[in-house]
Amino acid sequence: MREIAFEKGHGTGNDFLVIPDIDGEIVLSEQDVKKMCDRHFGLGADGILRIVMQADGLYLMDYRNSDGSLALMCGNGARVFAAYLYKEKLIEKENFEFRTRAGVVSVKINSANSVTVSMPKVEILNKDLLIEHHGFAYSGQAVTAPNPHAVVLVDDLNQVKDLSVAPTLTTAGIFDDGVNVEFVQKISEKKVKIKVHERGSGETLSCGTGACAVAAVMNELTGEKQIEVEVAGGSLTIEFIGDEILMTGPVEFVAHGVLTI
Amino acid sequence: MREIAFEKGHGTGNDFLVIPDIDGEIVLSEQDVKKMCDRHFGLGADGILRIVMQADGLYLMDYRNSDGSLALMCGNGARVFAAYLYKEKLIEKENFEFRTRAGVVSVKINSANSVTVSMPKVEILNKDLLIEHHGFAYSGQAVTAPNPHAVVLVDDLNQVKDLSVAPTLTTAGIFDDGVNVEFVQKISEKKVKIKVHERGSGETLSCGTGACAVAAVMNELTGEKQIEVEVAGGSLTIEFIGDEILMTGPVEFVAHGVLTI
Repeated sequence: MREIAFEKGHGTGNDFLVIPDIDGEIVLSEQDVKKMCDRHFGLGADGILRIVMQADGLYLMDYRNSDGSLALMCGNGARVFAAYLYKEKLIEKENFEFRTRAGVVSVKINSANSVTVSMPKVEILNKDLLIEHHGFAYSGQAVTAPNPHAVVLVDDLNQVKDLSVAPTLTTAGIFDDGVNVEFVQKISEKKVKIKVHERGSGETLSCGTGACAVAAVMNELTGEKQIEVEVAGGSLTIEFIGDEILMTGPVEFVAHGVLTI
Repeated sequence: MREIAFEKGHGTGNDFLVIPDIDGEIVLSEQDVKKMCDRHFGLGADGILRIVMQADGLYLMDYRNSDGSLALMCGNGARVFAAYLYKEKLIEKENFEFRTRAGVVSVKINSANSVTVSMPKVEILNKDLLIEHHGFAYSGQAVTAPNPHAVVLVDDLNQVKDLSVAPTLTTAGIFDDGVNVEFVQKISEKKVKIKVHERGSGETLSCGTGACAVAAVMNELTGEKQIEVEVAGGSLTIEFIGDEILMTGPVEFVAHGVLTI
């Protein structure tokens, strides 16, 4: 039986257990992570963000999915991770970098509840996708962010049926391992509202890379460089500055203490 | 912004936030409870168990559902509540009583992880129920515990289809406000395995009154006075001693700390 200090926080409803482990002494097995993330038998979260100091002086975001598997990078998780480092004075400047399995990430602390994070490159592929959902056919744009996305523009988001049922990609020869699907309703040149089905997870409250994929498609259509993407769990702002993609969004911490595994 | 001490625990996967508030100083609005129980935007739980000392020297289990409504009594919650009182030395004997909105409950601490609790009276009604589920028709027994239950005996629990879809009670004139449905597979004279659909909640990991309703039906069929009921989240033992119904089951605490609302 081990006791481990935690802080629980979320970004647009995507929730994490932050585990400070500066000296890298805590070993978390797949089973440990599953138990910690189980919402009934454990504390419950979408994932674990363990903080470990690296030899080069950067903190590593050791991110695990709730099923215990290793994860590369997550925009919502990165904001929570950065806000925790700043709040706990592990870092005492507003602009800093940390390491993820997908490389070094730059962040900016805007306030206690708002963080901007640099996101991976997004590429719009020259390929139309056909998506079927509840008997309706939709046409979508193929985007990598770098994970696979299908961005589907609709007139009215309310007409999209129950997204706990996975949309089916019927176009062959692309995204054979599955695709994240974003249904998008344009509110204005600068604002869209989306619903997301994440492959393997179903409908989710928020998807950072999905918001970037959608913003990239809007940017290409309208030339807008700053786009607000309203997700089920809140609002994210995506900015295109040169080659950089910046995502700004909220962070909230809801509890801290000690968990037992 | 308020900080509130909590302990998170579960009984057979039915999970609760215990809030010690001996002097009754903490006011929890419906909105507060919803936020605390939200699994993404809060800490997350099936319900809140606030501990308040009453004028008569008994502790009150101020139990709230995750939607913020007041709840009367819950067998799994009562075990978690009792185990916490004993663990924290708020009570220093193994047999004791506390108050719920449904009246005084007797408990026995068997070990740090096992508690026995007295459960409300169960009545088997002289009424057959017709239940439809995924196009199949089932015959069930009407039971009040005192909430309404339909106990349905099946040969093989694996043949019961997806219980996130509510079974429909097609018998008129009874349980018009909905019914909890237990599908039951007999393993031996002393043991059954069940799957539960709780009205309003869908398929749940455990239902204390459901386990009692099932055990009462088995007791009537076989005369057995001690029946083990295997639920999705673990195992409960129901004993019939005279007029008393005792439920014994596990308790586990997984985290403690401070939450913010």
